[in-house]
Amino acid sequence: MEDGLVAAMRAALARAADVHGTTSPNPPVGCAVLDASGQVVGVGGTQPPGGPHAEVMALRAAGERAKGGTAVVTLEPCAHHGRTPPCTDALLAAGVARVVYAVGDPNPVAAGGAEVLAAAGVRVEGGLLAEEAQRGALRAWLHRQRTGRPHVTWKYAASLDGRVAAADGTSRWISSATSRAEVHDLRTRIDAIVVGRGTVLADDPALTARDASGALLDRQPLRVVVGTGDLPPAAKVLDDTAPTLHLRTRDPREVLAALDERGAVDVLLEGGPTLAGAFAEAGAVDRVLAYIAPVLLGGGPVALGASGVSTITEAHRMVVEQVTMCGPDVRVSAVPAAEQ
Amino acid sequence: MEDGLVAAMRAALARAADVHGTTSPNPPVGCAVLDASGQVVGVGGTQPPGGPHAEVMALRAAGERAKGGTAVVTLEPCAHHGRTPPCTDALLAAGVARVVYAVGDPNPVAAGGAEVLAAAGVRVEGGLLAEEAQRGALRAWLHRQRTGRPHVTWKYAASLDGRVAAADGTSRWISSATSRAEVHDLRTRIDAIVVGRGTVLADDPALTARDASGALLDRQPLRVVVGTGDLPPAAKVLDDTAPTLHLRTRDPREVLAALDERGAVDVLLEGGPTLAGAFAEAGAVDRVLAYIAPVLLGGGPVALGASGVSTITEAHRMVVEQVTMCGPDVRVSAVPAAEQ
Ligand SMILES: NC(=O)c1ccc[n+]([C@@H]2O[C@H](COP(=O)([O-])OP(=O)(O)OC[C@H]3O[C@@H](n4cnc5c(N)ncnc54)[C@H](OP(=O)(O)O)[C@@H]3O)[C@@H](O)[C@H]2O)c1
Ligand SMILES: NC(=O)c1ccc[n+]([C@@H]2O[C@H](COP(=O)([O-])OP(=O)(O)OC[C@H]3O[C@@H](n4cnc5c(N)ncnc54)[C@H](OP(=O)(O)O)[C@@H]3O)[C@@H](O)[C@H]2O)c1
Repeated sequence: MEDGLVAAMRAALARAADVHGTTSPNPPVGCAVLDASGQVVGVGGTQPPGGPHAEVMALRAAGERAKGGTAVVTLEPCAHHGRTPPCTDALLAAGVARVVYAVGDPNPVAAGGAEVLAAAGVRVEGGLLAEEAQRGALRAWLHRQRTGRPHVTWKYAASLDGRVAAADGTSRWISSATSRAEVHDLRTRIDAIVVGRGTVLADDPALTARDASGALLDRQPLRVVVGTGDLPPAAKVLDDTAPTLHLRTRDPREVLAALDERGAVDVLLEGGPTLAGAFAEAGAVDRVLAYIAPVLLGGGPVALGASGVSTITEAHRMVVEQVTMCGPDVRVSAVPAAEQ
Repeated sequence: MEDGLVAAMRAALARAADVHGTTSPNPPVGCAVLDASGQVVGVGGTQPPGGPHAEVMALRAAGERAKGGTAVVTLEPCAHHGRTPPCTDALLAAGVARVVYAVGDPNPVAAGGAEVLAAAGVRVEGGLLAEEAQRGALRAWLHRQRTGRPHVTWKYAASLDGRVAAADGTSRWISSATSRAEVHDLRTRIDAIVVGRGTVLADDPALTARDASGALLDRQPLRVVVGTGDLPPAAKVLDDTAPTLHLRTRDPREVLAALDERGAVDVLLEGGPTLAGAFAEAGAVDRVLAYIAPVLLGGGPVALGASGVSTITEAHRMVVEQVTMCGPDVRVSAVPAAEQ
């Protein structure tokens, strides 16, 4: 049975990953319901804002078989009335005997689900695969709850010697097709892609999520260009394939406030060096995702521009969270040392 | 028995690694001798130039027990008279029945050992753990045989954003104590450390191999400074802890020719960016060993200076050979794509 719980949590985490990018400002949650004998009889994920939460989706799939069973959820069920009724009500109505969750809800309004369920006689346990859940689909949402601002992943593709373009400004392509495909997939899981105006002028990127043939994927994040100057009217970011926001500021905090206002929780900062440097200086880089290609350039712009560091002791210290190969490239994920 | 051969080859490879750095211009070879029953009865490594080769050392340790046994060697035994008699003679005199080696000798003068042995009735097989042997202690020597010039490993320590120092020039320490200890160990296994004059002026490095307490390790490579200008008389590289060569040139080919003349086979290029760029442009970087520390700087010199690349299609393409963590740092080993 306990092995079954881990497997069920993995199914719930997988469903959460599937809905990641479609739920903000709500958390991307997954739920698996087991019947009294321990068989998985329903799996569900959070629906877009206004739609049912993961528990309700999983309970619907399970139907009568949920009675006396167990709900396995990636996040502690909510106990409050938002745009939908509390999940605790749905779990109690379904007659679930046990609830196992990964991460406790840090939200002071929604929290208390565990307590409500326990008071109603449900056996409640938290912490199963908590670290995996925290680092996965829930990462940005948890960060937003803790800090009050969106989570920023600064992603870049650089040569082994740290350049994001060659001396003449050409950068297509430094990283491999495999890395680029991974980034396009990542773009479907976040709420907004942010670049500086310099990147638009230099590269005229579309900032859309596309497949290898160039066809648009199902979901497109908000495109955001940061900079006080105008954008060329013919810029690809201004086409109608996805919404675009031009923020006439140079202040990362204003950018984050504007995005927060629009319900963006998970933000992908795609450069260039000037804007990334400003975010690093503002302490607004919550994760670095570097695709390091095994090429040497010896000239051209470096991944990160001025970030307020003048001497080595002032360096922004990070901790490597994961290193993997992405095709021929090295993919490094790192987080600020303090937030480890 | 065949399992025993693999284990014996691993013992031979380990011994070769031990003597790596003490044998140039001869190859660092390891040998394990098994008796007729398959027990390891002697292990040996190449002694410094003029001293016995690995086979002779292992046969000495084995004594009478080598008779009817097997010699397991990382490199095909030599058949020629150099400063020492041919190893084939020693193997035949010991009455070894079988010889198993990893890598064939590409040296046109020394090669033919396998043939000589086979003609004398010894069972000879090559290729066991050949790839491991080629990438290990023998790498530089094999490169020297193939190309006629020393093998160059360009090693650098950089921030995640590719900087080798902060904006004010401070660079102590970008990488971790673990990475630095590994580099000091590496220094004892190579023949020469090369830096540009700029690095001496900026950092006044000692370029010695030291332990964590700062005490000198047993073996010190030749220190080489490249640059047309003078060195400050008080520079640490001019102290008497190890020999130093000042090459008044800016041409990597002249540097390599001068080192080759002195019997250096395995060269560690430790920067800075200008000299490393010149080596990359000359096609004289045979391996990149990058210690990438999880810190962000956003300013300061970049690992690689001008290397003859002006546009992305001219990039020096490499292949990642190995990525590992070295303490908190990411260690990337890459080789030119063409030499893979
Ligand atoms: N390989 C990669 O991952 C990657 C990704 C992106 C870009 N790139 C490369 O990066 C290069 C462009 O670099 P870049 O630094 O010019 O691009 P950038 O950072 O995208 O844009 C710089 C512009 O952003 C605005 N900006 C926003 N906040 C700012 C602040 N705090 N301080 C100053 N300016 C701020 C300014 O525009 P206003 O003047 O309008 O205020 C500034 O000119 C191109 O070569 C491109 O190929 C590479
Ligand atoms: N983190 C690391 O791994 C690491 C390692 C080394 C250095 N560094 C940093 O690198 C910085 C020094 O950089 P750098 O580029 O000045 O150092 P460099 O490459 O060591 O030295 C440059 C000098 O080398 C000579 N040189 C040799 N070949 C040359 C060529 N083909 N073209 C031009 N000059 C050539 C020139 O001296 P002449 O004028 O005498 O001809 C030139 O001034 C320092 O900040 C240091 O901390 C970091």
